[in-house]
Amino acid sequence: MPELFQVVTIAEANARLAQHLAPLGRSETLALHEALDRVLAEDLHAPVDLPAFPRSTVDGFAVRAADTYGASEGLPAYLTLCGEAPMGRAPTITVGGGQAALIHTGGMLPAGSDSVVMVEYTQRLDATTIEVVRPVAVGENVIPVGEDVRQGDLLFSRGHRLRPQDLGGLAGVGITRVPVAARPRVAILASGDEVAPPDAPVAPGQVRDVNTYTIAALVRRAGGEPLPRGIAPDDAATLGAMARAALEDADALVIAAGSSVSARDMTVGVIGALGAPGVLVHGVAIQPGKPTILAAAGQRPVFGLPGNPVSAMIASGLFVAPAIRQLLGAAAPPVITRRARLARNVPSRTGREDFVPVRFEQRGAEVWADPVFGKSNLIYTLARADGLVHVPLDLSGLYAGDEVEVHLF
Amino acid sequence: MPELFQVVTIAEANARLAQHLAPLGRSETLALHEALDRVLAEDLHAPVDLPAFPRSTVDGFAVRAADTYGASEGLPAYLTLCGEAPMGRAPTITVGGGQAALIHTGGMLPAGSDSVVMVEYTQRLDATTIEVVRPVAVGENVIPVGEDVRQGDLLFSRGHRLRPQDLGGLAGVGITRVPVAARPRVAILASGDEVAPPDAPVAPGQVRDVNTYTIAALVRRAGGEPLPRGIAPDDAATLGAMARAALEDADALVIAAGSSVSARDMTVGVIGALGAPGVLVHGVAIQPGKPTILAAAGQRPVFGLPGNPVSAMIASGLFVAPAIRQLLGAAAPPVITRRARLARNVPSRTGREDFVPVRFEQRGAEVWADPVFGKSNLIYTLARADGLVHVPLDLSGLYAGDEVEVHLF
Repeated sequence: MPELFQVVTIAEANARLAQHLAPLGRSETLALHEALDRVLAEDLHAPVDLPAFPRSTVDGFAVRAADTYGASEGLPAYLTLCGEAPMGRAPTITVGGGQAALIHTGGMLPAGSDSVVMVEYTQRLDATTIEVVRPVAVGENVIPVGEDVRQGDLLFSRGHRLRPQDLGGLAGVGITRVPVAARPRVAILASGDEVAPPDAPVAPGQVRDVNTYTIAALVRRAGGEPLPRGIAPDDAATLGAMARAALEDADALVIAAGSSVSARDMTVGVIGALGAPGVLVHGVAIQPGKPTILAAAGQRPVFGLPGNPVSAMIASGLFVAPAIRQLLGAAAPPVITRRARLARNVPSRTGREDFVPVRFEQRGAEVWADPVFGKSNLIYTLARADGLVHVPLDLSGLYAGDEVEVHLF
Repeated sequence: MPELFQVVTIAEANARLAQHLAPLGRSETLALHEALDRVLAEDLHAPVDLPAFPRSTVDGFAVRAADTYGASEGLPAYLTLCGEAPMGRAPTITVGGGQAALIHTGGMLPAGSDSVVMVEYTQRLDATTIEVVRPVAVGENVIPVGEDVRQGDLLFSRGHRLRPQDLGGLAGVGITRVPVAARPRVAILASGDEVAPPDAPVAPGQVRDVNTYTIAALVRRAGGEPLPRGIAPDDAATLGAMARAALEDADALVIAAGSSVSARDMTVGVIGALGAPGVLVHGVAIQPGKPTILAAAGQRPVFGLPGNPVSAMIASGLFVAPAIRQLLGAAAPPVITRRARLARNVPSRTGREDFVPVRFEQRGAEVWADPVFGKSNLIYTLARADGLVHVPLDLSGLYAGDEVEVHLF
């Protein structure tokens, strides 16, 4: 009973699924403190200029620049103190010709002034006079109105994932509640007659469910809301009923298929029956993870991942995470890698992409990536690893000593 | 009024603070689905062998390897079918000499068998006889008991941050509740007469509080629980009272100091009065972020960060995040960088570490890092950036075209 399916590349698999998906378009409004790592549901524009008034960037004296031209240690400019710019309020004084007002970093420039002389370049002569020993140009040591952002500027586009500095930037312009995409609801179904819940004793021949936990955490990381839906037996009718029920109140469904060929064949049948367009990909040119199934029921993506925990996790990262981002309408995240030197040869095959778990090892000043070889049934292969090395489609392997980019978990 | 403080390196600053801190030692027990990214409070050992029984890694026939020795296409071995190993239960059959039992991937090996022949290398002759055309070795296509982990093995050390695969691994050995370090409570206090809450209209001369939001999000990312404690005026008595109150029910305190020299001087005084050992560092050899204050009140770290949002964020990442990890007892996280080519010269100075916000730009197959120059008062300098390029202590700058590691936000 050899498996008859036509493998496609990762890129082709994702492209086939992507054309059936669209952003969900559901959003919610959150306070800034709750919005970290959430995805914007709308473009946000600046409602005000930032700063809204000209601010000093130093401690010193607000002056008219022209009054300082030519000033030097030998020939200082003498200015008359006309007051102090208070912090947090608009100054009521006006700086006239030959005058200077004390100002602090962040203070608002008084009317009439156009620049600030740093305190270091001044000398207080008496209660009302300072000497200035260096000239300033118009605008020097001043942030003009709108230098950070101008009213109406696009701050962040829809699809942007909010980072700490973005929340600060929104606070800065007075946006304290933000519209974000609702988390896609991703149902997760384990399957296999041998699979048992992890919180109860298991009988000989049974194994505890690993995949639901790994996949749920990956779904959460990708921005989805995981909905664990239990364990289905290797029985097409029951698996089918559980899959339909799980998909009913979810935006996506992930089935960790049984590990045997017959269990996988059953999963393909069940997934195909969930609705058109049905199965789009059955088999991807990757190792591990080859027997992955990608499908859609309407606009809802459905995944049949291999039951081996390592394969399930890698396939989840490659296919489920991008689909969740598409449902969120999220921009692609940066690739997160760390460069290292490969500690051992890694064989592969052209026409196949390999993902090899590696562990970092510091050797002197260099970081090495040591492959953690292990069967893809062994979850601790990944627990012992720091990341994955990717062997591209067109290479037949990598050599010890090669520089590689390690994709971090 | 030049500032008189002695700057130290980042490493020295962190070392001075670290010697006064210790893990909080408070823990809580969470269900696996809630434990993602939390830090283990105890070493965890495997309570069982994984797998707990010998499992087949393929679909095929469980046999005695000796019965297949010498088998080939021309001279197959003939074996008698003695039954099937069921999924999820211990087989009741025993495989005797010259016998074979049907078995599926993940199934438990029946007594008497020591290996599995893949179905591809067999031929069914009749209801009770198969021919085997390739020999197998003892243990071939079998995961022996404990190959993934052995009972008593150290699974994860105290201080380990739990990743998706780790949760799966714990489920696999039946650990469904985990002891994790409680999140350190980090009080955050903004200060400055000019600083106003972002959710109300501001008067001319006032600026909205940015730092509380940025710092709170960074605290959350580092594993702490941010406790925003409002905005203090530039008044030593009030700032002091608010700082003492904030620290009372917190494990750490971050004050985003006012931006003027006098406001910073006041902050140093207030922080020094919170308790021994007091101020440990006043000034770090970094740009931006130089006037950073590191202190401890007993074992509680206290930070006075520069009020400029860019400085505050960078200093927070450099000093607050490591202290939170120490309070958690967490292992150092992997450095997350992306390699790129620098698009423009970046000047620095030996004896100082610079952190330059950059934006990624794809040029053909190459990623370039384009510096986002901007005053450190401009929060959108960071909002427009994808990461930071670090100029080490011993370099006077970096050149356009240099390969750099960009630290991602």
